[in-house]
Amino acid sequence: MMIRTLSTLECTKLLAANRTAHLACARDGQPYVVPLNYAYADSHLYAFSLLGKKIDWMRANPLVCAQIEEHTQGRGWRSVIVDGRYEELTDRIGHKVQRDRAWSVLSKHADWWEPGALKPVAPPMSDGSPHIFFRILVEKVSGREASE
Amino acid sequence: MMIRTLSTLECTKLLAANRTAHLACARDGQPYVVPLNYAYADSHLYAFSLLGKKIDWMRANPLVCAQIEEHTQGRGWRSVIVDGRYEELTDRIGHKVQRDRAWSVLSKHADWWEPGALKPVAPPMSDGSPHIFFRILVEKVSGREASE
Repeated sequence: MMIRTLSTLECTKLLAANRTAHLACARDGQPYVVPLNYAYADSHLYAFSLLGKKIDWMRANPLVCAQIEEHTQGRGWRSVIVDGRYEELTDRIGHKVQRDRAWSVLSKHADWWEPGALKPVAPPMSDGSPHIFFRILVEKVSGREASE
Repeated sequence: MMIRTLSTLECTKLLAANRTAHLACARDGQPYVVPLNYAYADSHLYAFSLLGKKIDWMRANPLVCAQIEEHTQGRGWRSVIVDGRYEELTDRIGHKVQRDRAWSVLSKHADWWEPGALKPVAPPMSDGSPHIFFRILVEKVSGREASE
């Protein structure tokens, strides 16, 4: 296998072309990693989640890491790693356009990783919605490609 | 989708049946996540790695998290999360049997995630080998299954 480093542009293209990441957060030195459906736009990964451990931990410590991979010809692959920062987007501070756009993208491209609760027909807009809308600011990105 | 919790036995079976995990470690509050090829035995995930960021960070902080998933019928999936502890295994303290066994398993089941350097014909045995042999003690395991 030949390994090469991806350029920042190649990394960004990979982020934009994919929908599933593995997202890691950490609290008190203990990491936690879960799959995440996301939509990329403007240097951010946008996502929805129910309340739970992941959101609790990212609220306590916004430093996160996301890894996104894609398989290429034969046994080849590309992998991109993002060092990022968690930012919660509430309705109150006017993120309706971003929320609607992200919901539209994610509901069109439902991937294998989809919690059962993330399937209402209408976007989770009301204040009473249990869905948290957040984004990960891509602060640093790096990637590699392996080809046969 | 119906979501249910996996039993500890079901989680262990999933760990034993798979070879690729996403492994997260953390340093100074910053998480880091990468794919990992592993072989499961006796409550541990065994793996090889070249020296680099992952090994540096796990040496500094042995608390790690591994997530392993498998796709089931239709859009169904199972996912297991391990809270674990990094332990480096050197030749000097007599882990030859474990090392040979892990190498044998991993070289037979080479998966998509295989750094180019991890392909010598002979196991990485000599003191001069750049391969680090380590295991993750499974301290806590939990899992979920989604089915249509």
